[in-house]
Amino acid sequence: MDISLIGGDARIGMLAETAAHKGNRVLCCGLDMYGFGEGCLLTDSTRVAIRSSKVIILPLPVSRDGINLFAPLSYFGIKLDDITKYLGEEKIVLGGMINKEYQKEMEKTGAKVIDYFEREELNILNAVSTIEGALEIAMHETDTTVFDSDVLVVGYGRLGKVAANRFDAMGAKVTVTARKKSDLAWINVGGYNSINTKDIYKYIGGYNIIINTVPHIVLGEKELSKAEKGTIIIDLASQPGGTDFEFAAKRGIKAIAALSLPGKVAPKSAATVIFDTISGILDEYNLE
Amino acid sequence: MDISLIGGDARIGMLAETAAHKGNRVLCCGLDMYGFGEGCLLTDSTRVAIRSSKVIILPLPVSRDGINLFAPLSYFGIKLDDITKYLGEEKIVLGGMINKEYQKEMEKTGAKVIDYFEREELNILNAVSTIEGALEIAMHETDTTVFDSDVLVVGYGRLGKVAANRFDAMGAKVTVTARKKSDLAWINVGGYNSINTKDIYKYIGGYNIIINTVPHIVLGEKELSKAEKGTIIIDLASQPGGTDFEFAAKRGIKAIAALSLPGKVAPKSAATVIFDTISGILDEYNLE
Amino acid sequence: MDISLIGGDARIGMLAETAAHKGNRVLCCGLDMYGFGEGCLLTDSTRVAIRSSKVIILPLPVSRDGINLFAPLSYFGIKLDDITKYLGEEKIVLGGMINKEYQKEMEKTGAKVIDYFEREELNILNAVSTIEGALEIAMHETDTTVFDSDVLVVGYGRLGKVAANRFDAMGAKVTVTARKKSDLAWINVGGYNSINTKDIYKYIGGYNIIINTVPHIVLGEKELSKAEKGTIIIDLASQPGGTDFEFAAKRGIKAIAALSLPGKVAPKSAATVIFDTISGILDEYNLE
Amino acid sequence: MDISLIGGDARIGMLAETAAHKGNRVLCCGLDMYGFGEGCLLTDSTRVAIRSSKVIILPLPVSRDGINLFAPLSYFGIKLDDITKYLGEEKIVLGGMINKEYQKEMEKTGAKVIDYFEREELNILNAVSTIEGALEIAMHETDTTVFDSDVLVVGYGRLGKVAANRFDAMGAKVTVTARKKSDLAWINVGGYNSINTKDIYKYIGGYNIIINTVPHIVLGEKELSKAEKGTIIIDLASQPGGTDFEFAAKRGIKAIAALSLPGKVAPKSAATVIFDTISGILDEYNLE
Repeated sequence: MDISLIGGDARIGMLAETAAHKGNRVLCCGLDMYGFGEGCLLTDSTRVAIRSSKVIILPLPVSRDGINLFAPLSYFGIKLDDITKYLGEEKIVLGGMINKEYQKEMEKTGAKVIDYFEREELNILNAVSTIEGALEIAMHETDTTVFDSDVLVVGYGRLGKVAANRFDAMGAKVTVTARKKSDLAWINVGGYNSINTKDIYKYIGGYNIIINTVPHIVLGEKELSKAEKGTIIIDLASQPGGTDFEFAAKRGIKAIAALSLPGKVAPKSAATVIFDTISGILDEYNLE
Repeated sequence: MDISLIGGDARIGMLAETAAHKGNRVLCCGLDMYGFGEGCLLTDSTRVAIRSSKVIILPLPVSRDGINLFAPLSYFGIKLDDITKYLGEEKIVLGGMINKEYQKEMEKTGAKVIDYFEREELNILNAVSTIEGALEIAMHETDTTVFDSDVLVVGYGRLGKVAANRFDAMGAKVTVTARKKSDLAWINVGGYNSINTKDIYKYIGGYNIIINTVPHIVLGEKELSKAEKGTIIIDLASQPGGTDFEFAAKRGIKAIAALSLPGKVAPKSAATVIFDTISGILDEYNLE
Repeated sequence: MDISLIGGDARIGMLAETAAHKGNRVLCCGLDMYGFGEGCLLTDSTRVAIRSSKVIILPLPVSRDGINLFAPLSYFGIKLDDITKYLGEEKIVLGGMINKEYQKEMEKTGAKVIDYFEREELNILNAVSTIEGALEIAMHETDTTVFDSDVLVVGYGRLGKVAANRFDAMGAKVTVTARKKSDLAWINVGGYNSINTKDIYKYIGGYNIIINTVPHIVLGEKELSKAEKGTIIIDLASQPGGTDFEFAAKRGIKAIAALSLPGKVAPKSAATVIFDTISGILDEYNLE
Repeated sequence: MDISLIGGDARIGMLAETAAHKGNRVLCCGLDMYGFGEGCLLTDSTRVAIRSSKVIILPLPVSRDGINLFAPLSYFGIKLDDITKYLGEEKIVLGGMINKEYQKEMEKTGAKVIDYFEREELNILNAVSTIEGALEIAMHETDTTVFDSDVLVVGYGRLGKVAANRFDAMGAKVTVTARKKSDLAWINVGGYNSINTKDIYKYIGGYNIIINTVPHIVLGEKELSKAEKGTIIIDLASQPGGTDFEFAAKRGIKAIAALSLPGKVAPKSAATVIFDTISGILDEYNLE
């Protein structure tokens, strides 16, 4: 076998299929409820799964409770310990959002452990899915077109860059906030309006759609008290987000915490992204 | 009064508010269930409504059955005859999708009758809403991102032009079909791939999203039998559309007839578009 | 032979090479100074050139004086009469900007005569070259970047559409003028500002680059007297253009009549466009 | 006085005018040949110039020979020592490309010294001018349109990002090279083709325009020997650039070292950029 995949949701199932489709010999374990097409072998045994391949792929996230592998499509449970006990030198384990302690335990066996969720390229490509999800929300939740809307994108990191591009492309009038002078320069070069993040409260009244990408409070009482009631906020920053949701509710402003969009809006693309990232990692280690 | 509005759905309600907001004296009839803000006067009497204004605005469509005015927000019914009997010379009636016979009847009273739904500018702006709706459907109905999808846009009229632009802007690889050499030249200048509409059957296998805008069968057995099963078709052409829906169903291809999207996905923008069109018409007649 | 080409400048030479490169048997006459690569046969005799091929390609323009064929690369002159006397039924003659009388003379021989310069698709593709030329002029003649410039595009026909797109893409703030409501709607959908052509005089003061595409006076005394002195006008409309050049000079406004740009800025692309247009024409007649 | 400017070329002259236009009291020294409009005071004395303002602006570059100030518009020479001897605590000196030793000398006087040319935001905005210059060269040096050209952009830093955007916007088919996986991901998200910089030699044959932005040899013998003869290389990287110019010449490939484009193609915009950067710096120090 070339690759064994253990546990995970539909994305890992699709990943297995894609890997098989590209010519790899693929062994799956703990994906029982996933309706596989041809090309993937299945096993009930984590021992077999681990022993037969050099490369072991664990789900995203590897675990939710620190005890069991995340395996929602499995008829039986898989313990994290079931994995470690069959690992050893020369095994390469790729997992997503690996708990630091569990990573150390795996590494004690001599295995090489890599967290693919920390890879920059995965997060860039996921940003595309996330922003398509945000756009879908914006279209669904407003009774106006995105075209000709006034959109404020808070932050100009990965998500902010893609958000500005896509909303602009739909014909919205886009303003982006940032703090660094160089980011503000890039925003202008991109053809957007720019404002300093600390000045949001001065201008917030002019926007009907606000996309937040900053993971600490940037849309607090000071800002929200000046926002129009019809404004919709789509907060893409990881929890607790950048919005004072309680105050927004009090003010009658609709604020939506939109998390984990890639897996929800485009699971197949999310699977492709994970696959491409993993392929890239294996390629770096001259494995394939 | 400057304008009387009789009947119609939420779009006409919003239109009344927008007109009032821009400084017109506005009288509404048959919009009882619409929760008006300040600025619009209401009346139960079509006679009062028609007599007090020079400009009478009828809904879109004016009627669905040829007998009653389209007035879903009215507690009581309004007959088309109730309108004609109070019209007269110097009245200007603006209605949407007016039945030709009813138009003649109204014109017999000496009134000037204009169908705003036939105005090119209204249809261009509605195309934007329609394509946002199509994009929302494409995002919702696929498990991939629109980014990097292979999209075929059939036809390069109003809808085709906007569809090509928007899907391209989202990062899709867009091919557009047309028949005229000049349209094919414009498609290339726009940066899209072009194929002749009559050759769709040769290339259809390569696309996962197909947007049809042509109002006669262009996606028939010959074409659909070569399409991939996972393909999704969004047919925007007015009924019966350009897709052989029965055959598509038989082949397991998802084909969606998406009609009247502007009113559904962005009623407020649709109202603005109607308002702007009507304003433009009044402007041409030097009325306001 | 498949195609004979008689007379013309470097574009016809490139056209001959392209035609040969695509597998046609090609015979050239009156292109002596053009340094041909392999693949094209040459002849001194118009009789041989015409007799040996069904398809005869004449230059753009066919003639400048109504007596001689336009053949600047020929060591000897070719009279228009030399062409007509060898033509006959079943010959297909393709020429550019053919004088109406000469066309009739040729048609008297029974030949089919087509003016490829009147083809819409040729003019669309030439518009791309023209606008690249205009952009090059705008960059060269100003001491500012096009990025962040205020650009006024007068007219929204073929040239106006491409001009708006390209200057916008370079980061300029673009306003387009038109007269028809439907054109104004398209301009807005494209994301540009729109003004009515008749109102240019009201707003002209705000632009530093003006691209005219309208072939009658739209930038006259009334307009130019309100333009800023540093403004540059690039007039792309065929002579006499849409600018009062004399008054502009008096006002100290730089106005450039930029004609025949495709042949000047991108002769090879211009040749390709002519070739593609001619190929399309032959294709329609089921010739190739 | 608020600001004194000493030495420099037309950009510093324009900068003085812009500063005056924005309401600053401005004193100029060593700009004698610059035809000033109203609003700027002139002095022959560096002592007066330095003593009267808190903020002293030196040219870009401050010096070319390490002895004299760069002052091509001055009738008399200004020595670097003439500046230092009148500086002191609380003076703020802003200069471009300051020699490290000279910077230390100035700092010994207690003055605060800042090199505005090292500011990221200046370089980002200059990248826009540089790429417009590159586009102008590409248009001028080829006999084809940029539209439909195959363009290779080497490197995805500041210049590469803007180059990819602008050439794509003109309708070119753009491929960008980078080494980092995250850059390659961004390139794909931007809608361009991506290749690894180390693989240029494999694909170089397919491009007719190559824009280099990498400041060490990436277009050497290995690569150039596979490039087509008609290819044009525009090398924007600071000297010695990324191209083996000698080998390119031997191969008959046109390679152009295009340096300092902002000052050449758009001096007024370059001046604005310097002014905005300097304003930003002063703003940070709460000076204005």
